[in-house]
Amino acid sequence: MALPIAVNAMGGDNAPAAIVEGALRARTDGIDVMLVGRREQIEPLLGGAPVEVIDAREVVEMHEHPATAVRAKRDSSILRAAELVAAGRAGGVISAGNSGATLAAALFAIKRIAGVARPAIGASFPSEAGQTFVLDVGANTDCKAEWLAQFALMGDVYAREMLGIDQPRIALLSNGEEAEKGSELVQAAHPLIAALPLRFAGNIEGKDIFRGACDVVVTDGFTGNAVLKVAEGVGEFLFASISREARASLSGRIGGALLKPRLRPLRDRIDYRKTGGALLLGVAGEVVIAHGRSDAEATLNAIRVAARAQERGVSSVITRAMSTAPSAQPAQPTGVSA
Amino acid sequence: MALPIAVNAMGGDNAPAAIVEGALRARTDGIDVMLVGRREQIEPLLGGAPVEVIDAREVVEMHEHPATAVRAKRDSSILRAAELVAAGRAGGVISAGNSGATLAAALFAIKRIAGVARPAIGASFPSEAGQTFVLDVGANTDCKAEWLAQFALMGDVYAREMLGIDQPRIALLSNGEEAEKGSELVQAAHPLIAALPLRFAGNIEGKDIFRGACDVVVTDGFTGNAVLKVAEGVGEFLFASISREARASLSGRIGGALLKPRLRPLRDRIDYRKTGGALLLGVAGEVVIAHGRSDAEATLNAIRVAARAQERGVSSVITRAMSTAPSAQPAQPTGVSA
Repeated sequence: MALPIAVNAMGGDNAPAAIVEGALRARTDGIDVMLVGRREQIEPLLGGAPVEVIDAREVVEMHEHPATAVRAKRDSSILRAAELVAAGRAGGVISAGNSGATLAAALFAIKRIAGVARPAIGASFPSEAGQTFVLDVGANTDCKAEWLAQFALMGDVYAREMLGIDQPRIALLSNGEEAEKGSELVQAAHPLIAALPLRFAGNIEGKDIFRGACDVVVTDGFTGNAVLKVAEGVGEFLFASISREARASLSGRIGGALLKPRLRPLRDRIDYRKTGGALLLGVAGEVVIAHGRSDAEATLNAIRVAARAQERGVSSVITRAMSTAPSAQPAQPTGVSA
Repeated sequence: MALPIAVNAMGGDNAPAAIVEGALRARTDGIDVMLVGRREQIEPLLGGAPVEVIDAREVVEMHEHPATAVRAKRDSSILRAAELVAAGRAGGVISAGNSGATLAAALFAIKRIAGVARPAIGASFPSEAGQTFVLDVGANTDCKAEWLAQFALMGDVYAREMLGIDQPRIALLSNGEEAEKGSELVQAAHPLIAALPLRFAGNIEGKDIFRGACDVVVTDGFTGNAVLKVAEGVGEFLFASISREARASLSGRIGGALLKPRLRPLRDRIDYRKTGGALLLGVAGEVVIAHGRSDAEATLNAIRVAARAQERGVSSVITRAMSTAPSAQPAQPTGVSA
């Protein structure tokens, strides 16, 4: 039976109003939710809907140091929400708040899966063929080759379970397609991934993410974050420029008005805020990191991702994959670098 | 007096025809050019124009290992073209061929500027405010913090001389704006750049490149290459998607037809092939690396960039900046990693 999804009602630029609204819409969609945060701020937004509210008095702010704040604020909404998953009361958690704090709370309360050196954050990008899942997009700023190999395994599970792809093509982000190309890190990771029991497509370049050449792209969290932010920046720039062009002349205005309804879904696709945020892979529960600027729709989509992850048992499948993987690393102490 | 620009007529997917055509158009624009490559392939394309052709019998192919090929092929068009600059016969060189080979030939024939640890490749991206110059986009896959500090100095010179900006704002690409964010490399480079006599805007994220928050963005060649290729990929994806939407319905077709002439310049702006390629900074001459798929127009633009770099004396200004910079490093042995 599906457990409710714990929603950090206090996280994000538009919290709590937009977050609560998104949660109520998820409920209408048949997804059970729990709202975590300051009861007196949440309850007036419910409009009488019978949603369970878990009171938490503290909030980790966007500017706070994630791990320090989570350790200091034991009654923070993000930590309480993660604890609900750890206690088996919630089937997953979503937060649009401080993303490092979400990672820290997940590590602190839900814990890493045995054998996972570092959890990774994965995000989906649109491609000519549908979508491409990229990980890590920010959890681990400096990576070791062995971690990238584990990201490959976890990405393989994600694509099978969440995207329904039988034999996902896994690629390594590099600065050229040839096997000998890449940073020292990429060159060290290449043979490790090639030795794994998955369909390794070799090195790809950044442009290939959007061409549908593969299903999963593995990279370190620093480069992955640059990929995420550059895609966001180019998308914003182009749509702003198109809007400007569509206003600049009569023919542009008519053309823009006719084309606009068709461009909106496209704009949403390139904006990962609308596509449900990013899934944290490698912790023993389903954790979704939504964009800080999430509105109600983005919150709804993030809750959908968490519900689907619960339904498919993504963290359980990763747990099994790690216990049998030839390259599974022994558990190591881990910190939070995001 | 301006010297001619040496054009590698054999480099690029569309060589020699498109390259020669671009060179002829530059000549019409008042830029003197020399064409380097197999005489019997170039001369029939000149249509009688009195352009000097420098015969070179060999060609470095796209798949060849750059440094090895340049060392082995002493009569390659790219090496001969670089030698013309070194000999003071040409004022700059452009090539759309193997970009690693262009870098290798520049290092081999033209040499690094004294004090420059590693030359860097810089590329311009469009922004809300005009353009943002990013370096390194691919010359140095693994970087040291001191190299990034030198990239900052060279980027400062570029923005002053090539873009005419009085006090360019120089930023460091990171995974967050806070000074403590970033990989070990970025954290080590931050104080080095802050200590330089330039206007340091601190850390920025990938999306800020396209928002015009700064004039120059410093990064390592692996991340910079990802930025370049992701921007290319997102641009291609979005314009292909917009074209598809504009064909999918009657209103879309009418809207697309009305908007199309306004979108083309925008498409060109996001495509660095059209904007003249990338300038190699840190060698003792003006070297432009054009896109492998350069057509005649892209070739023309690359030649314009080289001519402007010669006019502004970019490599001379960098030479002076390096000789006075507090952080200028002693010359070190260098290889080619691109």
